[in-house]
Amino acid sequence: MSGQFITFEGGEGAGKTSILHSLRKKLSDHGFEVLATREPGGIEIAEKIRTIILDPMHTEMEEHTEALLYAAARSQHLVEKVLPALKQGKIVLCDRFIDSSLVYQGYARGLGMDEVFAINQFAIGDCMPDMTLFFDIKPKKGLQRIAANKDREQNRLDLENLEFHEQVYKAYHILAERFPARIQTINADQTIEMVEKDAYDRIISLLT
Amino acid sequence: MSGQFITFEGGEGAGKTSILHSLRKKLSDHGFEVLATREPGGIEIAEKIRTIILDPMHTEMEEHTEALLYAAARSQHLVEKVLPALKQGKIVLCDRFIDSSLVYQGYARGLGMDEVFAINQFAIGDCMPDMTLFFDIKPKKGLQRIAANKDREQNRLDLENLEFHEQVYKAYHILAERFPARIQTINADQTIEMVEKDAYDRIISLLT
Repeated sequence: MSGQFITFEGGEGAGKTSILHSLRKKLSDHGFEVLATREPGGIEIAEKIRTIILDPMHTEMEEHTEALLYAAARSQHLVEKVLPALKQGKIVLCDRFIDSSLVYQGYARGLGMDEVFAINQFAIGDCMPDMTLFFDIKPKKGLQRIAANKDREQNRLDLENLEFHEQVYKAYHILAERFPARIQTINADQTIEMVEKDAYDRIISLLT
Repeated sequence: MSGQFITFEGGEGAGKTSILHSLRKKLSDHGFEVLATREPGGIEIAEKIRTIILDPMHTEMEEHTEALLYAAARSQHLVEKVLPALKQGKIVLCDRFIDSSLVYQGYARGLGMDEVFAINQFAIGDCMPDMTLFFDIKPKKGLQRIAANKDREQNRLDLENLEFHEQVYKAYHILAERFPARIQTINADQTIEMVEKDAYDRIISLLT
């Protein structure tokens, strides 16, 4: 028996992280064995790599270096955390994965989606997600949601300008068209309850 | 005016490192501006990446993670150290570069030469070396040289078994056939003076 690997993707303010955690609980309550994770996910080597990426002293980090470091952390997190859980038959819900790299580094930062795909393919081998949920909300609305949420810490990406987020949004749509069997688009511009229900139903369809 | 990027490659005990440093001196004495380097080469981000790779606590590091980290350190070292020197018109002598990854990780460790080439191509872009000197000596002889040299610290690779070094040797020959315009094979099974003269002559031919 092997598990199911489901990744959550989308721009800022799409609600994917909070939905991931409520779905983890809901699926557990229904008797599924679930692992919720995100890179670097407490994996020592991956955490150390992330520390290098995020060190504010490293303003001079070259973008190709950064993309390779993300791929390296991904490889280690996958091998140490995701694959063992899948082997135990668990459902793995992962907050961001390869598509985030394709979208943010490949497209929005201009390194090339195919190029970034190549290094990530090296990192993950044949472990593409069984299903990817893309939480689709227009960047302006997503950013408004974040601005309205006082509890949420702003991170570096929130601070990028709107044009950057528009690029990210466009890239997710390119990917959704390129991988229609894997990527399911969820309308995230609804109440959180409706988005959550939609996501839950997709997962249940995959599992049953 | 732009410089020349020359890499030194070969198995253990081929003498490339000591020859690199004597050629650096000789070329400087002849009025050339020379930079001798090797990754991570004092570049802060690259050094930190190397620290992760070499941490003896990390016996569980996945081989793909390791290869990606080498590529990341390469990218940063290239951008911060090699390219600025080339722009200043210098001759850059680099002890090991992309071919070492292809040979050690790609071939000898079995990750695939094409696969490792892909991530390194991402790391270096169009900055392939202008010339690569491959110091060709049969592994058994190279290892005997090392064993005879009491001053030289053994490193991790020295401790691999002979079969591994035979794989490395075979892979260098595959590369020399694949990139005949770039890779020049030097018979390293001669006196150090003769090997050094051969290498010097090849560099002078490139420069003049």
